[in-house]
Amino acid sequence: MASQSDHKAAIIDGKAIAQTIRNEIAEEVPGLAVVIVGNRKDSQSYVSMKRKACAEVAIKSFDIDLPEDVSQDDLIAKVHELNANTDVRGILVQLPLPKHINEEKVLSEISIEKDVDGFHPLNIGKLAMKGREPLFLPCTPKGCLELLSRSGISIEGKKAVVVGRSNIVGFPVSLLLLKADATVTVVHSHSHDPESIIREADIIIAAAGQAMMVGSSQIVVP
Amino acid sequence: MASQSDHKAAIIDGKAIAQTIRNEIAEEVPGLAVVIVGNRKDSQSYVSMKRKACAEVAIKSFDIDLPEDVSQDDLIAKVHELNANTDVRGILVQLPLPKHINEEKVLSEISIEKDVDGFHPLNIGKLAMKGREPLFLPCTPKGCLELLSRSGISIEGKKAVVVGRSNIVGFPVSLLLLKADATVTVVHSHSHDPESIIREADIIIAAAGQAMMVGSSQIVVP
Repeated sequence: MASQSDHKAAIIDGKAIAQTIRNEIAEEVPGLAVVIVGNRKDSQSYVSMKRKACAEVAIKSFDIDLPEDVSQDDLIAKVHELNANTDVRGILVQLPLPKHINEEKVLSEISIEKDVDGFHPLNIGKLAMKGREPLFLPCTPKGCLELLSRSGISIEGKKAVVVGRSNIVGFPVSLLLLKADATVTVVHSHSHDPESIIREADIIIAAAGQAMMVGSSQIVVP
Repeated sequence: MASQSDHKAAIIDGKAIAQTIRNEIAEEVPGLAVVIVGNRKDSQSYVSMKRKACAEVAIKSFDIDLPEDVSQDDLIAKVHELNANTDVRGILVQLPLPKHINEEKVLSEISIEKDVDGFHPLNIGKLAMKGREPLFLPCTPKGCLELLSRSGISIEGKKAVVVGRSNIVGFPVSLLLLKADATVTVVHSHSHDPESIIREADIIIAAAGQAMMVGSSQIVVP
């Protein structure tokens, strides 16, 4: 049972909200470099969406396509070149990278001022701490909060349950919810009886990498 | 009601455990600099405990006592001197500092390798992220986990509730509990009905800066 009587489960139309945001963006960002290595179908699809979104809002996209067998040194040299290019305000390196490349090493070479994914530990630390502000917010967590806000759902004081604790989505979204004054619980693969915890939630963020893991039986309030 | 029937509230003897740990420490740490500015009674009492604990375990303590009206520049110059001193492995600057000094600025001047309080955002970020390890753990949160561990209380899968979310105790202890695979909920001043959440907990860490805030009525399992 949810603790508040004004709750019902609602499906948020993320696509419509994303389109609204793109329409709102002016020419804030002069240039975004999107780096892809190799030919993974999923990565190509993500990258092509990012480039298309850039085009739609008049952000200049710098498309860096490198072959699957590019050396780590050559990839890092490219990152350094983008760090130095003043037309490039943000750098996204699409993950995963091929096995012969150390992802952590490559990501740590991105200048923190251009690390628009916000995954640098210094950035995550500032996101986590009261009274500090990160330079960038990781995009999916920020998107979750934006969806709630634009759907008129208040967060303060609500019981929010985050399912999953990845560095990329689950964990940073729990930080953002806590900063927004939710009572936050993080549920994960070691949690006992996660269903009962999820049933108590006012807001559920399912970020466990598996669609439909949280079913309507858990979110519909009787 | 707690979710597991094998739970009862127990009082942990922190003083006895601290003594055991001091007895265990050999001469691991060559030198700890403890810096105090001014004459605050509470700060002097904390610092004197730290220096006494150093003496007990043969850690060389570098005692830096500066007057209340020391300038920020002089304090920072002292921090730089300690950074450069190879006999000093750790630096503690006792907080709070006098109002004319910017704490964040002074703390950020401590070399990250000697920031034994572990409050640098880079350190907190590494503590927060999966697959990264911080250089140092903040002492009170680490102490809480040590108390649990030395009292034979397992954490994995347990419902842990942290009351309070300060940068110094509540928040980092929630990170440590999550890393130890607890299902962690952070309760704070904006939480609705915190009592009911606390009653469900297997482990409660009360870090709200007020003794006896969590009473026996909330932790005794019927």
